[in-house]
Amino acid sequence: MKHVLPSGLTLLLESDPHAQSVAAGYFVNTGARDEQPSEMGCSHFLEHLMFKGSEELDAVTLNERLDDLGGHSNAFTSEEATVYHAAALPERLDELLDTLTHLMRPALRDADLQAERGVILEEIAMYAEQPGVCVVDELRGDYYGQHPLGHRVLGTVETVSALTQEQLARNHRERYGAQHVTLVLVGAFDEQAVLEWARRELASWPAGRLTPPVPAPQPPAEGTFRHLHDPSLHRVQVALTTPGLGVRHPLREAAALLADLLGSDGGALYWALVDTGLADMADLAHLDYRDSGVFEGGFSCDPERLDAVLSAYLNVLSGAQDLISEAAVRRAARKAAVATLLRAETPQGRLFTLGMEYLAVGEVRSNAELAARFTRVTAADVREVLRLCPLHPVTGVILGP
Amino acid sequence: MKHVLPSGLTLLLESDPHAQSVAAGYFVNTGARDEQPSEMGCSHFLEHLMFKGSEELDAVTLNERLDDLGGHSNAFTSEEATVYHAAALPERLDELLDTLTHLMRPALRDADLQAERGVILEEIAMYAEQPGVCVVDELRGDYYGQHPLGHRVLGTVETVSALTQEQLARNHRERYGAQHVTLVLVGAFDEQAVLEWARRELASWPAGRLTPPVPAPQPPAEGTFRHLHDPSLHRVQVALTTPGLGVRHPLREAAALLADLLGSDGGALYWALVDTGLADMADLAHLDYRDSGVFEGGFSCDPERLDAVLSAYLNVLSGAQDLISEAAVRRAARKAAVATLLRAETPQGRLFTLGMEYLAVGEVRSNAELAARFTRVTAADVREVLRLCPLHPVTGVILGP
Repeated sequence: MKHVLPSGLTLLLESDPHAQSVAAGYFVNTGARDEQPSEMGCSHFLEHLMFKGSEELDAVTLNERLDDLGGHSNAFTSEEATVYHAAALPERLDELLDTLTHLMRPALRDADLQAERGVILEEIAMYAEQPGVCVVDELRGDYYGQHPLGHRVLGTVETVSALTQEQLARNHRERYGAQHVTLVLVGAFDEQAVLEWARRELASWPAGRLTPPVPAPQPPAEGTFRHLHDPSLHRVQVALTTPGLGVRHPLREAAALLADLLGSDGGALYWALVDTGLADMADLAHLDYRDSGVFEGGFSCDPERLDAVLSAYLNVLSGAQDLISEAAVRRAARKAAVATLLRAETPQGRLFTLGMEYLAVGEVRSNAELAARFTRVTAADVREVLRLCPLHPVTGVILGP
Repeated sequence: MKHVLPSGLTLLLESDPHAQSVAAGYFVNTGARDEQPSEMGCSHFLEHLMFKGSEELDAVTLNERLDDLGGHSNAFTSEEATVYHAAALPERLDELLDTLTHLMRPALRDADLQAERGVILEEIAMYAEQPGVCVVDELRGDYYGQHPLGHRVLGTVETVSALTQEQLARNHRERYGAQHVTLVLVGAFDEQAVLEWARRELASWPAGRLTPPVPAPQPPAEGTFRHLHDPSLHRVQVALTTPGLGVRHPLREAAALLADLLGSDGGALYWALVDTGLADMADLAHLDYRDSGVFEGGFSCDPERLDAVLSAYLNVLSGAQDLISEAAVRRAARKAAVATLLRAETPQGRLFTLGMEYLAVGEVRSNAELAARFTRVTAADVREVLRLCPLHPVTGVILGP
């Protein structure tokens, strides 16, 4: 079900004749971390411009066609991926593929760029009002320093204001080349027919440019806490991070389960901080990137309780060893495995899992295999994660009045 | 597939042998609008306390059991409904039903109540920091006045601080009685076996109290705009509302399509306000309740542009007539119909649609029927909605610096 076209573009086709829909997505192996620092935000800016139409279709027609498909269509940009996806009833497969493929060949008109710049500056202004978002941006700046994993996906007012049509077109040319693009289809469709369509319609997809990977980020040698004051706030937001494992590490799933024991909805941080009324939220997740990973989390609380909540949070982290038992790991593993299985109940859910996993590790993994990777994790594996990643030093940012 | 037990509790069973999971939910026909004003927030408070355990199970064990099911389990409270739901693999059906049913028989211990009060006060404090939430609370206060549809689901600091164990227990007794409760199951399960289980295990579900419905709210005779100033804000949030149709109105779906033409992601407000960079978001939705409905929406923008954006928004509303064509209505109808079909691809998705529709209109509607109700809508229907609900007068609240 994996096919590489002569151009280098990859197809992943996972058909299921019992499905009631078909979902398709172009998964582009590029994101904010692949940007030049002076062009920060250009991946996300490009994602917006893709919806402005191709040489053949103007923006209104393109968006009407997406609407006409009836299913949910959208796009997102992250540190390492840019994804365009849509779902439709099986009888609309031809329009689905045709419309999504038009989306991938944007005209990148200068007039659209100028108008869309205003839209993105509004988006930046909207998030600048959200302390929970700002504090994470600041945290990643502190943790990654000049490393591009610290890039803000939206860019900054300065970089977005300065981006030119030429820069965006170059980024599209280099980073949307065939070797960076994977078209994934899941659901009710005929694999042979789609393969023939792809060989015909995607044959001339231009090659991009392969950029050498930048070195992995170096975690700070010592923990720091930076306190930012904004007198207009009534609550305090705290974000913190500590080294984790990269996406190709064999203990990646064990790291996710450790984060679950600590930081999920019914995890230790919830019981210690939220259930006690100390904080309105408290969480921790394991984020894994191509070459590195972090445990990242935080909480939000009344400023008067900051010291107490922060030490309660750090106490939970330093007591992580005591949470690891076979029973607790089994429960977390089962939850992760069932979540994986249930996510794949719809073609669209399976599309994301299949496509993102392929971008991350370069392998096609069945849903059963993904679930089994969780159920195979033992308490010893989770303890080994804790040995490799002792949850300190901690880098943190405090944003409050 | 609809069964009413002798106690008055309703069962809706929709089995699908091809499904990969089973989803179950208790849908309780009660919400914030059914509260005494002095007890505002008690529905949501009760929802929290349900997770604190029954006489037989303490909170930790109950939550471990929910976690053990592996699927997503949660609850929510709205103006008219309180819902407890979970999903699991089919072989865990017995535990799923047993655990959800334990959840519905809470011990309501006073110590848990005192602790949970702190959790809810934290939740209120968290939302008080979110101007987009505050402005809607203020708007509903203005629009509904003393009518209970203006109740805040979370309650206020005052009402939540004052709620007693006795009040919460009375609310549970009266409002969680058998005649208010519908247990819905969707997915891979045996209907006969579940029916036998229900006849055995749910037979003694106590009756509650039927409260006479309060009269429908009277929309304000004239529009008003109230301007609230908070110097700590950098953006301005505007929320506004105008009369719509109740959930049992035969043009309810046409009203939803009118809102879609105006206020969805690719609707007229998006193109006029967001695509032009005037506002970072702009939307409008049709909210239908038992006895009444509203079109409710708003936008967020730079304070300097407030006047321009507000008049652009109101211009779109007053030009709604020009948006209504057969082609536009067909497109919106197809989108709504396909969304209905795709939502039902998972048992959990269908569970919500089936259960919420039953609570709202008291009828069991197949998914195909729900989709067809959209595709049957004509441009003339949407014009008739606009005649009945001319999108004025408008009640609005502006919250900015």
